[in-house]
Amino acid sequence: MHSFIEFSTMFQQKFDKRHFPLHTQTLYDPAQYILQLGGKRVRPVCVLMGNELFGDVIEDAYHAATAIELFHNFSLIHDDIMDKAPMRRGMETVHQKYGESTALLAGDVMFVRAYEYLNKIHINNLQKVLHLFNETANAVCEGQQLDMDFENRDNVGFDEYVNMITLKTSVLLAASLQLGAILGGASEGNQRHLYGFGKNLGIAFQVQDDYLDVFGDPEKFGKQVGGDILSNKKTFLLIHAMETASAEDQLALKQLLQGNPTDKVQKVTAIFKNCKADNWAQELKNKYLQTALQHLEDTAVTSARKQPLIELAAYLIQREY
Amino acid sequence: MHSFIEFSTMFQQKFDKRHFPLHTQTLYDPAQYILQLGGKRVRPVCVLMGNELFGDVIEDAYHAATAIELFHNFSLIHDDIMDKAPMRRGMETVHQKYGESTALLAGDVMFVRAYEYLNKIHINNLQKVLHLFNETANAVCEGQQLDMDFENRDNVGFDEYVNMITLKTSVLLAASLQLGAILGGASEGNQRHLYGFGKNLGIAFQVQDDYLDVFGDPEKFGKQVGGDILSNKKTFLLIHAMETASAEDQLALKQLLQGNPTDKVQKVTAIFKNCKADNWAQELKNKYLQTALQHLEDTAVTSARKQPLIELAAYLIQREY
Repeated sequence: MHSFIEFSTMFQQKFDKRHFPLHTQTLYDPAQYILQLGGKRVRPVCVLMGNELFGDVIEDAYHAATAIELFHNFSLIHDDIMDKAPMRRGMETVHQKYGESTALLAGDVMFVRAYEYLNKIHINNLQKVLHLFNETANAVCEGQQLDMDFENRDNVGFDEYVNMITLKTSVLLAASLQLGAILGGASEGNQRHLYGFGKNLGIAFQVQDDYLDVFGDPEKFGKQVGGDILSNKKTFLLIHAMETASAEDQLALKQLLQGNPTDKVQKVTAIFKNCKADNWAQELKNKYLQTALQHLEDTAVTSARKQPLIELAAYLIQREY
Repeated sequence: MHSFIEFSTMFQQKFDKRHFPLHTQTLYDPAQYILQLGGKRVRPVCVLMGNELFGDVIEDAYHAATAIELFHNFSLIHDDIMDKAPMRRGMETVHQKYGESTALLAGDVMFVRAYEYLNKIHINNLQKVLHLFNETANAVCEGQQLDMDFENRDNVGFDEYVNMITLKTSVLLAASLQLGAILGGASEGNQRHLYGFGKNLGIAFQVQDDYLDVFGDPEKFGKQVGGDILSNKKTFLLIHAMETASAEDQLALKQLLQGNPTDKVQKVTAIFKNCKADNWAQELKNKYLQTALQHLEDTAVTSARKQPLIELAAYLIQREY
């Protein structure tokens, strides 16, 4: 069995090469550029771990892992265009560096390259793998569209938000694990449990991300505390406050969202605390984490094999900063 | 055997349905919108014809044809964003109607849907079909990038232009025919000839398109005559004139390209006539058409089976307007 760090290193060694031809350089250099910005490679590692839960890691798992990482980067390029984001991982985004049209196309060829890697997978698993991959790609696009739709709405309900987050981020984590499970020869029941583990872990991660944006330790968090508040982003905390805060606080919150006073972060944070959104978020995170771990528990393999995935959950979720 | 019109009608009957779920509507309605704008469905018909050249049309050919038409529309949505085109087929483009971000995503889900149709194809042919489809998708993206690169260059050579046109448009026609041939059980040699037929036919079509923009009958052409000249588009005619016109005419041409005088179309057309670009283009078109037909001639099936493809070539190329 391999730990997250071991798999991450092993994957990175194979992935760290040029994935595109030298020509047409004006198209393929921008595509290659984003791959070199790094990242923890969580999703491809999930493919490898999903495989190893059921047996020795096979070469096809690396093909699927590579496809997943290329798909993830395709979605980052296109999302950054839509969000007009100038920076990613401390570097210029693809569209910022090369222009929007080239970034759009670079995303497209990244997506095609993902399918080329999938097409290396043994014919016995190809249709199942493609089906799951396609379903996941659709879900990610739907999630991004819902996220954009929510920006233009005053009220978004808790269930709607969970659905959007599930589609936009959790499903890819879940599908990565299931792809590995398929390639490891898992039964459909075990595949479903591993998918459930990934999906709930992904939601727990998002709850934590929303929490840390407000209540994280600024020194450890690495991002501006309150960034989500300043950009009026819908988050678990905001949605909870809009639903449970006192009438007075709800009114104050609505007014704060309409402007950008200098003490906006401080005041919104106070409202979050008034309605105990901080405690609620911690409990919510733990609820999803427990559901995730229960799915892992219910997966019919020996406990010893599950250890790396339990450590992965701890690594992703139990950050204190 | 079926004619172009017959296949076009048969395909349209199957294709004319909703290809996307009802939810998320804000994403899938825009995707469905472009499919209802119509079009001659030339590429999917090529898949069906490529199949029928070698045997009875099978259901998988309709899956591949649908995937090709969805891919084509994906590329139209993204190209229209890049070209900032407000209209297509007399209607608003997707990004004009729904915004750029949604159009980008609608293109992405269209592309995923294409792969879902491909994944219905019998496992015996799936890998070959996916490989050809992926190669083609890459080529189309490269062609679009080269087309954008050429906009920023003063001089583009004939060979470079043919390469760009081949990638951007001809390869999709060629691959459509070859996909049909694969599904019809054609030998690799026959597949190559059919691909060659489509590739050269596509280039001939582009030569004609460039020619008609300047020398077509305005009443029959349906577009503004000289549109390419007004937008300084690189065309077969312009590239030929830049290479063969007299020194005086080349200088005049360069000056005309730098402005937009009211008599620009008239003057550029006169330069094209001076260097006989009109006759040259007609000969060039015929050269590619003959090469295409030779590939069809060399395909090892009875002449009778080739008749619909010969008629397709005549339909696409020998328009007089």
